[in-house]
Amino acid sequence: MKINDLITQTGEWLKGDGPNADIVISSRVRLARNIKGFPFYHWAGKKEKEEILSIVKNAISKSKYMKGSLFVKIAAIDEIDRQFLVERHLMSREHAVNDEFKALSVDDREVMSVMINEEDHIRAQAIQSSFNLMDTWRVLSELDNELEDKMDFAYSDRWGYLTACPTNIGTGLRASVMLHLPALVITNHISRVLQAISKLGVMARGLFGEGTEASGNFFQISNQVTLGHTEEDIIDNMEKLVNQVVGREKSAREYLLTQNKPALFDKIWRAFGTLKSARIITSDETIRLLSLIRLGVDLEVIKDIDRRTMNELFIYMQPAHLQKLEGKKLSSMERDMRRADLIRSKLKV
Amino acid sequence: MKINDLITQTGEWLKGDGPNADIVISSRVRLARNIKGFPFYHWAGKKEKEEILSIVKNAISKSKYMKGSLFVKIAAIDEIDRQFLVERHLMSREHAVNDEFKALSVDDREVMSVMINEEDHIRAQAIQSSFNLMDTWRVLSELDNELEDKMDFAYSDRWGYLTACPTNIGTGLRASVMLHLPALVITNHISRVLQAISKLGVMARGLFGEGTEASGNFFQISNQVTLGHTEEDIIDNMEKLVNQVVGREKSAREYLLTQNKPALFDKIWRAFGTLKSARIITSDETIRLLSLIRLGVDLEVIKDIDRRTMNELFIYMQPAHLQKLEGKKLSSMERDMRRADLIRSKLKV
Repeated sequence: MKINDLITQTGEWLKGDGPNADIVISSRVRLARNIKGFPFYHWAGKKEKEEILSIVKNAISKSKYMKGSLFVKIAAIDEIDRQFLVERHLMSREHAVNDEFKALSVDDREVMSVMINEEDHIRAQAIQSSFNLMDTWRVLSELDNELEDKMDFAYSDRWGYLTACPTNIGTGLRASVMLHLPALVITNHISRVLQAISKLGVMARGLFGEGTEASGNFFQISNQVTLGHTEEDIIDNMEKLVNQVVGREKSAREYLLTQNKPALFDKIWRAFGTLKSARIITSDETIRLLSLIRLGVDLEVIKDIDRRTMNELFIYMQPAHLQKLEGKKLSSMERDMRRADLIRSKLKV
Repeated sequence: MKINDLITQTGEWLKGDGPNADIVISSRVRLARNIKGFPFYHWAGKKEKEEILSIVKNAISKSKYMKGSLFVKIAAIDEIDRQFLVERHLMSREHAVNDEFKALSVDDREVMSVMINEEDHIRAQAIQSSFNLMDTWRVLSELDNELEDKMDFAYSDRWGYLTACPTNIGTGLRASVMLHLPALVITNHISRVLQAISKLGVMARGLFGEGTEASGNFFQISNQVTLGHTEEDIIDNMEKLVNQVVGREKSAREYLLTQNKPALFDKIWRAFGTLKSARIITSDETIRLLSLIRLGVDLEVIKDIDRRTMNELFIYMQPAHLQKLEGKKLSSMERDMRRADLIRSKLKV
């Protein structure tokens, strides 16, 4: 697979169905691993980094889960391609730098991706549609086993997997879900809900921007604790907490429908009208309006658009995606115009 | 004709074609007349008012221009019907009071209307589509002659026609045009243009609200001077001034198209999208958005809506019209919802 193949397909995790797909966009699990006998990445020399890259690349090439996968050295691709992979949720922003030993591998369904020489030697992730943490963990665990067959991971009987940053020591696992919580935002309950669960070992943050009431009503919840529990316990705890948030969002949606349905529907339809009409639109406004339309789709106010279309728009309306689609670098104003064109063509009903 | 017949038809002046119909909505001329031997309305007694009403009603019933016309006593109709006739531009707000001697007559094409016992015994008006002042004056003049055949008007060889308010003495004529000047507003030239022509014996004001930059970019220009000139001279002077304003608006539209066409088109399309989608909308917002769409129709950005539809929406989205259409009194919120429904059904393309 090549990077340009990604522009014509969409990841499995954007399909928009599965458990609680009206509220939980996606479930993601990542593992941090390091190879025994090598310094952590930031202390490693050129030779060592090169060797790490070579070991992991070899292991991936023999993995049946990563068969036919994309493999790119970050230094070998341009700025737009790097940003494109970040926008695609396939690698971290920190990984998108001009470093000759950093690489990324992605399977052809975009379920699994492996960053090589990120903060740890290996950062492997699996991402799936809707509320599916346990299954996502199992899928990733298989890849983890395959990789471990080809190398020894740095591991201590006392601490578990050793990682560059102490917060990842133990399981090296971070499980996270992306939630769409518009009703909790509209009813002003979001801060209270997020604060409450933050006390229970998870971190909650707005997905776009830093503030919790940031654009688009999207939030990411992930575990803080990776040490002293099994992977299954961590996932299990996360599922319980997320279920509570999902329940709160459902109640808030019911409340909105009983309290001021006409005003809510008006807001949703106006958002739809604006997106179907605008000729120039920023990403911030797009996120805000798409969030309302997604709520409209969930509440079955808007019936001719499906969640996959919504999810794809969130990904494709981003700057690097627009530039990949156009096949060239675009100015900010050009992007705002292409974005509006793309949205109109996707929402044509 | 009955009042309820008006709700199923639209006035000739809303048809939206004719000279400069892209900028001039309508041309209106009115004449103030009083019957010789009677005190002005505000000084007249009951008996006299009754007699005035009877004389004028009789004259109208014999007019061939007012054949088959509506004739209503204002006291005989309810509050919604009164407001409906005001919204329809068929009578003044001052005439819409519970006074047993006030009456209104309207011909079946809604070109001519006659208020009886307004400030003057007779206020007759003719209104036509687009920039057509001279023709509108000629039409009204014919009705004026018919009325004068049946009664003697208060007239002085020195002053001309005598009127209750000195500002109307002489010809008793007021000619006005309703202009749509969005480009002069957007380019911030409107105040300068209106101030300049105000020094030349005409009055210019925002059609909705008091400020010149009031909602909707609609303006009314009318003559101030009625004395010392012939009717034709007054009309001729008005036409020259209006032509200047029309020219300035045209230049401003061309300027907008060369300067920032994408931003302008975006604004127009968004207005269209909002009107086609909203479920709740106030009249202020409607006027503002319809103004942009009308500009879009004029600039041929929006092609599937005609000016008649636009003009009709301006009239039908008003409170009393919505209530007449619904056949009952509506609360403010109900009106905002009915207004949105009406607009969507009219703009369905």
